[in-house]
Amino acid sequence: MRCFDPSALKKLFYAILARNGVCEDACFHVSEAVIQASLRGVDSHGINLFPHYYAALKAGRINARPRFTPVRTGPSAIVFDADHGFGHHAGAVAMQAAVDSAKENGVGAVSVKHSSHFGAAAYYALSAARQGCLGLCFTNTNDSVLAYNATKPFFGTNPVCLAAPMADEDPFTLDMATSVVSMHSVRNCLRTGALPAPGQAYDVDGKETRDPAAVRCLGPVGGYKGYGLGMMVELLCGMLTGGPVGPEIIPIGARLDTPRYLSHFFTAVDIARFQDPQAFAQRLRSIAEAVRSLPRADPDVPVMIPGDPEKRCFRQRLVTGIPVDDALYRALTDIDEAFAGALLENT
Amino acid sequence: MRCFDPSALKKLFYAILARNGVCEDACFHVSEAVIQASLRGVDSHGINLFPHYYAALKAGRINARPRFTPVRTGPSAIVFDADHGFGHHAGAVAMQAAVDSAKENGVGAVSVKHSSHFGAAAYYALSAARQGCLGLCFTNTNDSVLAYNATKPFFGTNPVCLAAPMADEDPFTLDMATSVVSMHSVRNCLRTGALPAPGQAYDVDGKETRDPAAVRCLGPVGGYKGYGLGMMVELLCGMLTGGPVGPEIIPIGARLDTPRYLSHFFTAVDIARFQDPQAFAQRLRSIAEAVRSLPRADPDVPVMIPGDPEKRCFRQRLVTGIPVDDALYRALTDIDEAFAGALLENT
Repeated sequence: MRCFDPSALKKLFYAILARNGVCEDACFHVSEAVIQASLRGVDSHGINLFPHYYAALKAGRINARPRFTPVRTGPSAIVFDADHGFGHHAGAVAMQAAVDSAKENGVGAVSVKHSSHFGAAAYYALSAARQGCLGLCFTNTNDSVLAYNATKPFFGTNPVCLAAPMADEDPFTLDMATSVVSMHSVRNCLRTGALPAPGQAYDVDGKETRDPAAVRCLGPVGGYKGYGLGMMVELLCGMLTGGPVGPEIIPIGARLDTPRYLSHFFTAVDIARFQDPQAFAQRLRSIAEAVRSLPRADPDVPVMIPGDPEKRCFRQRLVTGIPVDDALYRALTDIDEAFAGALLENT
Repeated sequence: MRCFDPSALKKLFYAILARNGVCEDACFHVSEAVIQASLRGVDSHGINLFPHYYAALKAGRINARPRFTPVRTGPSAIVFDADHGFGHHAGAVAMQAAVDSAKENGVGAVSVKHSSHFGAAAYYALSAARQGCLGLCFTNTNDSVLAYNATKPFFGTNPVCLAAPMADEDPFTLDMATSVVSMHSVRNCLRTGALPAPGQAYDVDGKETRDPAAVRCLGPVGGYKGYGLGMMVELLCGMLTGGPVGPEIIPIGARLDTPRYLSHFFTAVDIARFQDPQAFAQRLRSIAEAVRSLPRADPDVPVMIPGDPEKRCFRQRLVTGIPVDDALYRALTDIDEAFAGALLENT
């Protein structure tokens, strides 16, 4: 397994996007977001997806130089057509608009349409948390989770994400698909040879499967409750924008020349309107410590709060670098010769 | 099993609260909320809780005549001290303040402290949905859900609730505890003789139990994801108000003379700032119909969306009345003689 220095890799991603005509802000946010996800150990949403993003850009799905402006329809309500740019770019601009509105009014909500895959939702929520807000972030995707008691999927893995500032450590982050696992994790099984766990994955007839090549959709987390949460997220995303929902959205790997018209929803809550922000951050830290100190069911595994595994991985990978397996290395070197050469120099 | 006419029962609840000095608005919302929950089949949060509410009122936990006013700290941010009144009353006032702020600004968020048990969250979210908003509603409660990989609970059953208007039928409603089941359902097992299902309930040592009398806490829905959602809800509730969280909150049945200092969080999103409201409601209906028409895994069970079982029960109980088992009937007749006599007249 090769390991790469995160800063060097980020610069390479930035450079190859820029060489392909991508606007500066998008170069920044795409490279920053995939490196952050990989540092946090969210390999399903990190640099593994870069070859896909590049292919979608070259094939025409993604607009290298989108023209977009958040439009306020009320002091706290903002709508925003992402013009088929990178979801990472649209997401970052949208969350900043939510934060700006929250700082003015207490809360800001931004509905984004005509977007593309934005990677890990935590990237946006963390940005709000670092500005003293609760950041909430949601996205829809295509029909990839079995509807409860149906043999077909309808809603996507539609994640729920919240981040909040904590004293003396990185913000609290919950970032979870409403499926048992994310589809990208199951796709990674194809590359790594791992098997989806029982209850995770279903085939085209809605029957459980452990063959990663046969996976058509995933189980909802916790049965009908995860299914309900997935529909809730779609209400906040595709229903609020009027964009396509579930089965109307093309899968990430299909027709790379065609935009996916994804919808997102971002909310920022200015903590200072409700609580002294320092007291909030300190109390969250002390509650986290109280939870972490609970007696363990498995004595060899620490009791953690959401985001702890990612913080631990982040600290580790800052030192060890970001691991790149052979399949990903090949996919990255296939991008173009200059990129392959630069990768080699940094190996 | 006796059945009662919902309107008659509601009047009786209103009357006995009023006779005990409860202010008119609280009489209205408590009686309305418990009858609505029971009509919707949410027996864990309906009239079953009325004897408890009455006892908590008489013992002094609940303030019969709270003085409260929502205070705006920004156009879209509202804080609100419920003065230990009925949670149903505080919740209804809070959600209306959220809706009013949303109609002005696009979004409104209300943080409520010093409150008491508010019954089913759907009562408040439905009220927002009937006014053209997405209504979101959250509450904390005491440590009743096992923390992931711990032998003790920390966060409560902390529900997530969203409602949205639908054309040609009652609003969409998702109202779910972040535990596998609600604690009230497990408590009802004590009365009905049913057993908690495997994986639902844990004893004082964090070991799984099927003895309803031994239940100390519940499993989080979907393992670590439900646990994470429970913490998310606590961030929106007790963390944002600065009120007690999880283990700092006294259980519903303990020390009825002492307020619980519960915290809630309400958000309303004015759909009209994002979408044509009629188009939204019609599309939600057509998406619901598409989901309901999916091929069934179990051919004898319809594919449903969140809220469908409750809508079905509501229609049925409007006709058949609300069922009251012997144990509940005894608890209700124990309230006082006048109430017992009035119940008998309506049996």
